[in-house]
Amino acid sequence: MSKNIREININQIKIHDPFWSAMQHRMTDTVIPFQEKVLNDEVPGVEKSHAIENFRIAAGLSEGEFYGMVFQDSDVAKWLEGVAYSLAVKPDNELEARADEIIDIIEKAQQPDGYLDTFFIVKEPEHRWQNLQECHELYCAGHMMEAGVAYYQTTGKDKLLHVVERLADHIISMFGEDKEPGIPGHQEVEIGLMKLYRATGKEKYKDMARYFLEERGKNPNYFYEEKKKRGWQHWGQYSLEPLDQRYTQTHATIYEQKEAVGHSVRAVYMYTAMADLAGEDKDQRLYEACQTLWDNIVKKRMYITGGIGSTVEGEAFTIDYDLPNDMAYAETCASIGMIFFAKRMLEIKPLGIYADIMEREFYNGTISGIQLDGKQFFYVNPLEVNPGTSGTIFGYKHVLPTRPGWYACACCPPNLVRLVTSLGTYAWSESETTLYSHLFLGQTADFDKAVITVESSYPWEGKVSYQVKAKKEKAFELAIHIPSHIRPDTLAVTVNGEKTDDMSFVKDGYLYLKRNWGENDVVALTFDLPVRKIYANTNVREDEGCVALMRGPVVYCFEGADNGECIQALRIPREIKAETELCKEGVLAGNVLIHLPGYRMESSDALYSEERPKRTDVTLTAIPYYAWANRGENQMRVWMPEE
Amino acid sequence: MSKNIREININQIKIHDPFWSAMQHRMTDTVIPFQEKVLNDEVPGVEKSHAIENFRIAAGLSEGEFYGMVFQDSDVAKWLEGVAYSLAVKPDNELEARADEIIDIIEKAQQPDGYLDTFFIVKEPEHRWQNLQECHELYCAGHMMEAGVAYYQTTGKDKLLHVVERLADHIISMFGEDKEPGIPGHQEVEIGLMKLYRATGKEKYKDMARYFLEERGKNPNYFYEEKKKRGWQHWGQYSLEPLDQRYTQTHATIYEQKEAVGHSVRAVYMYTAMADLAGEDKDQRLYEACQTLWDNIVKKRMYITGGIGSTVEGEAFTIDYDLPNDMAYAETCASIGMIFFAKRMLEIKPLGIYADIMEREFYNGTISGIQLDGKQFFYVNPLEVNPGTSGTIFGYKHVLPTRPGWYACACCPPNLVRLVTSLGTYAWSESETTLYSHLFLGQTADFDKAVITVESSYPWEGKVSYQVKAKKEKAFELAIHIPSHIRPDTLAVTVNGEKTDDMSFVKDGYLYLKRNWGENDVVALTFDLPVRKIYANTNVREDEGCVALMRGPVVYCFEGADNGECIQALRIPREIKAETELCKEGVLAGNVLIHLPGYRMESSDALYSEERPKRTDVTLTAIPYYAWANRGENQMRVWMPEE
Repeated sequence: MSKNIREININQIKIHDPFWSAMQHRMTDTVIPFQEKVLNDEVPGVEKSHAIENFRIAAGLSEGEFYGMVFQDSDVAKWLEGVAYSLAVKPDNELEARADEIIDIIEKAQQPDGYLDTFFIVKEPEHRWQNLQECHELYCAGHMMEAGVAYYQTTGKDKLLHVVERLADHIISMFGEDKEPGIPGHQEVEIGLMKLYRATGKEKYKDMARYFLEERGKNPNYFYEEKKKRGWQHWGQYSLEPLDQRYTQTHATIYEQKEAVGHSVRAVYMYTAMADLAGEDKDQRLYEACQTLWDNIVKKRMYITGGIGSTVEGEAFTIDYDLPNDMAYAETCASIGMIFFAKRMLEIKPLGIYADIMEREFYNGTISGIQLDGKQFFYVNPLEVNPGTSGTIFGYKHVLPTRPGWYACACCPPNLVRLVTSLGTYAWSESETTLYSHLFLGQTADFDKAVITVESSYPWEGKVSYQVKAKKEKAFELAIHIPSHIRPDTLAVTVNGEKTDDMSFVKDGYLYLKRNWGENDVVALTFDLPVRKIYANTNVREDEGCVALMRGPVVYCFEGADNGECIQALRIPREIKAETELCKEGVLAGNVLIHLPGYRMESSDALYSEERPKRTDVTLTAIPYYAWANRGENQMRVWMPEE
Repeated sequence: MSKNIREININQIKIHDPFWSAMQHRMTDTVIPFQEKVLNDEVPGVEKSHAIENFRIAAGLSEGEFYGMVFQDSDVAKWLEGVAYSLAVKPDNELEARADEIIDIIEKAQQPDGYLDTFFIVKEPEHRWQNLQECHELYCAGHMMEAGVAYYQTTGKDKLLHVVERLADHIISMFGEDKEPGIPGHQEVEIGLMKLYRATGKEKYKDMARYFLEERGKNPNYFYEEKKKRGWQHWGQYSLEPLDQRYTQTHATIYEQKEAVGHSVRAVYMYTAMADLAGEDKDQRLYEACQTLWDNIVKKRMYITGGIGSTVEGEAFTIDYDLPNDMAYAETCASIGMIFFAKRMLEIKPLGIYADIMEREFYNGTISGIQLDGKQFFYVNPLEVNPGTSGTIFGYKHVLPTRPGWYACACCPPNLVRLVTSLGTYAWSESETTLYSHLFLGQTADFDKAVITVESSYPWEGKVSYQVKAKKEKAFELAIHIPSHIRPDTLAVTVNGEKTDDMSFVKDGYLYLKRNWGENDVVALTFDLPVRKIYANTNVREDEGCVALMRGPVVYCFEGADNGECIQALRIPREIKAETELCKEGVLAGNVLIHLPGYRMESSDALYSEERPKRTDVTLTAIPYYAWANRGENQMRVWMPEE
C-alpha cells in the first residue's frame, strides 16, 4: 500500500514568484552561507559551533574533544538538508562539492555497526542509547535521514542515503517488539524513517516508524524507568522530570491522545509522522487520531498567526483558548512543524481546511522568524511587544522585541531554510487522476501529465493564472485550492478566457477542473482581497474587545514606527474604511500596507479617572505581521481594541 | 523637635463600626488564637513553626535545635504586637498572661550584650551581624521594637520595651559613622527605632534610624562587599545577587531615589521610616524625597485596589504603568506598608491625597488578603483570576484562585492583624490646634480636647456624624477628611442641624470646622455614593478598553459565581444604570452588591471569525473586590471591557 495522493519531487518545481523567490534567495544567498561559516567556526562573535569538527574528530580526521549541545549533530544535518533543496532552487557546484566533503566526513564518522552520533562516539561511548529522553540520538538520526533523502533526491548522490540506511538498520537492530523497548525523547526519527521508506521502498523503515509511534504512551512511565535503570541524567539539576508525561506526549498512546499537549515542536513532529503513516497505510483509525489532534490545535490552541505552543515553560501547549499575546512562545519551529503536519494531512485528504492552515503558517508565523535581511532570527513569535517590558520583566523575558543574531541552540534558522527552499513540494500533490495545487505560487511545475506555469500576484493581489501544457495523458483533473478567505461572489474563474460560472466545481476548498487539456490552456482566477476584521472566540481572554486585520492570508500588525507611542491607546472603528498601499521604499518595499481612519484615546495624567479618555481621529497604519521588528525596537500589536 | 501633627494612642479609640468591628473581631477571635497555636506548634497539618520553642531554646529553658526561617523570630514579634493592639480592642486577661509569659522567655533569651536573634544565638553564633543582606537580624529587631512599644502602650508593661531598648543599644554599639558600616537587608528596624524614640524620648534611637536610612545607597556595593568579606551565603544557590542594587534599594541614597523600585514591602517600609523621620525632624529635603517616591507609586505604579509591586520576581516594583491584572503580585504586606507610609505623610501634612490612598488600601488591597471567615489568606492579590490558568500555567503560578490556609512564610496574616487591630490610630492625628479625622469610622475617641463619638454607615451609605463633647479647651479645629470621590455638590454638612453651605472650609481634602465646641455639638455629613465607572490611564496596557466600577472607596469585581462562565465576554455599557443591593444572605451578607444592565458577547465555535460576536442583554452583578474568592474557585475580573 502507499498513498493515493503523493508528494511531488522538489526538482519538478521552479519557483519564480514575486513574494517567495526573494525569500528563497535570502536562504540561498545569506542564511546557508552564513550557517556554513558558523558550522565551521569561522564567524567571530558567534558562539562556537564545532559541529563539523565534532564529525571530524569522530571520523579520526582530527583530534580534540566534543563540543556543543548533545544534539549538535542535527545542525549539520539540517544544514545539509537545506543545501540539498537549495541546489534545486539555485544550483551551485562549489557548495555541492563542499557538502560532498562533509558527507564524506560523516560517512567516516559512522561506526562499523552503523551508529552515528558524535557526542557519544567522542565523549560518552559507554552511554549510547541509555538516555533516549534527554540525549537526542534518535532526533539527530531522524534529521540525518531527512538530509540523506533530500540530498539523494536533488543531487542523485546516494552516499549519505546509504549512511542513514545503515544508521536506520542499526536502530532497527536495537529497538522493537522483540528487542529493547524505546521511544525518542524528541520525536523526529519517525519523520526521517518515513522519508527513508519512501526513498528506498523498504517497508522495514515504515515499520520502525510505526513501532516508535505506537510504543509511545503504552508505558507512560517509560522515561522514568529508563532514568532509574541508568542512574544518570544528562542535564544534571536542569534535567526535566521524566514523570511529566504530557510534556513528552507519553501520557497516553497516540490513539488515545485527544489534545495537543507538551513540547509543541515534538508534538507536531509526532503528528506529522502519524499522518504520514496513516496516509501510507491508509490507516483510518490513525487518521482519525490525527484529525482529533488537528482540530484541537486549529480550533482551540492556535494564534491567528498560526503560532502554536503558547507558553515558554517547556515550549509547550497549555490549555484550550490560552493564547496570551505578550507572553506568547509560538516557536518558529512549531509553526514549521504545523506545515509538515498539514502537508501529510493533505496527502490523505485534499481538504481546504488543511491547505488554509498551511497557508496561514507560510505567510505569518513561520517567516516572522527571519529578519528581512536574512541575518537575524526569532525563536519566539509574540503578537504583542512592549519595549521596556518584553525581554525584561518576569513573564515576558523570553519575548524579545527585536530578532537576535545566530544563537547557540539554533534550531529555527536552518528549519526555516529547509522549509523555504523546499517550498515547491508544499505547493502540489498528485494522485492518479488529479494534480492538486495547494498554494498560489508563481512557478513552473513539471509533471508526468503536464507542464504547468503559474503566474501569481498573491498575496498582494487576487490574480493567479495556471497555464497548462498537457503531455501525453490529456484527461486529468486540476484541483486548485481556493483559500477560505476568498468570498465566492468575488471569485471569477476563466478557462481560456471563458468565464466558468459553475462554482459547484468547488468542493472542500478546491476548485476541480476536469477536462482534456491542450497545449496552452489557461485557467485564470481573480478575486477580491479586502481588508478583513477578525474577531477571536470569546473564550480567548486576551483578545476580548479586540480585532485583528487580515488581507488575504496575511495577518497585519501595528507598530510604533508607523503609529507613534502607546499603541494600545489606538482604536479600530466598528466600521472600517481601509486603503492599501504598495510600499515602495525602505525595508518594507514590496509589502502592501494598510491605512485606515481610527482613533487614539488620550487620558489625563491621572492613573485612574472617572473621565473617559478623549478620542481623537488618527490614521492608523498596519504592516504585514511577518515583517514586524525590521525598523528597530518599537511597540507592536496584532490585536487592537475596537471602538 | 518633634512632629507638629502627632499620632494618637490606640487606647484613646473604641471602634464600633458596622464594617470594621466585624473585621477586628475576626482578628481577635479567629486569627490571633489560631496564630498562637501555630507558634506553639499545636495545629496539625500546618507546617511546624517552632518560633516560640526557638526562644525557649535560646533562653536555656528547652533543649533542641533552631528550626524555621532565619527570620522566624519576627513571627513572634508580629503576633505580640497584634496581641498588644487586640488588648485595646478587646481586653483578655488570659491572653495577656500568656503574652507576658512569652515576653519572659524573650527576655531570658536576650544575651548579656543585648543581642537577640534566636537563629544566631542557637544555630550560628559565630555568624552574628555578618550577613545583613540576607539574615534579617535587623528586621527581626525592628519588629520586636514595634512589639515592645505596642505592648507598653496598651498594657503599660515595660519588660519588652526594656528588652528592645537593650537590643537597640546593642545595635547602636555595633553600627554607625565611627563603628562598622551597616544597613538592613530588609528595611524595618528604622520603623522600630522611630517608634522606640517616641516611646522613650531618647534621641539616640532616632539618630540610629537616620543613620540606617542615610547610609543606604551611599556605597551601592555595600552588600557585595559584605558578601566578599564574609565568604558565605545564607541561601546557598538561591541567594540573591547582591549586585542587584535596585532590588535592595541601595542603588542610590534615599535623597536620590526618584522611583519606587525593588522589593515592594522593603521599599515602603523604608519610605515609612523616611517620612516618620522627616516629620520628627521637620526635614523638608527628606519630605520632598518621600513625596517624589509617593508620587511615583500613586501616579504610575499602583493598582486601582491599592496593590503595589506588580511582579512576583523579587516581589517587586517594575516600571511605570506596568500593571498586569492576571499576573499581579500586589502583596498584601505591601499594601499594608503603603498605609504605614500614608500615615507618616499625614503626620507631616494632612493632605487628602494621603488619606485617599490610605482609604483605598484599607477597603481594598489589604483586606482582600483575608477570607471572610478569617481562616485563609492571600499573599498575592490579583485583579483577574482564571481557574485552569491562574496558579497553574507559567507566569500565573503565583496567582492563586482561592486563599490558601496558613503558610510557612506567614508574613501577611499577622501583618493584617496588627493593621486592623490598630485601626484606631489611623483614624486620627492631632496638632496643637486641630483634630484630624482621616477615616470615616464608627467610634468613640477620647482626646484631651474632647470626646468625639462618630456614627458611620460608611462605606455602604454616605452618612457620618461626629458628636463632639468638648473638655476644658473648647476652641479647636475639627478637620474631617472628605474623600476625593465625594462630589462636592452632593455633600451636605450640618452643625447641630444647621446646614453649612460654605465649602470654602474644605481645603486639601479636609473640611475644617473651627469653633468653640459645646458639650453636644453634632457635625453631620451626608453625600451620595454613586456607582462610578473608572478608566485607567492609557499607558496602562492591561486596562485598555476596560472600565472598573467603584462605589465610595470600594473597588468592585465580577465573579463567575454571579455572572456565569467566560466573564471576559461580558461588557459594561458606555452609559450605566447601576442599582445597589444590600446582600442579606450567605457569605456576602452585609455587603452592598451592584447590579447593572450589560451585555454578553457570544461568538460562534470558530476560533477566529469575521463575524463580530453577538451581543445579548444580561444583568451583571459586581461584588466588593476585597470579598472575592469567598464562594469557591471561580473566575474574577476587576477591569471589564466596555461596549
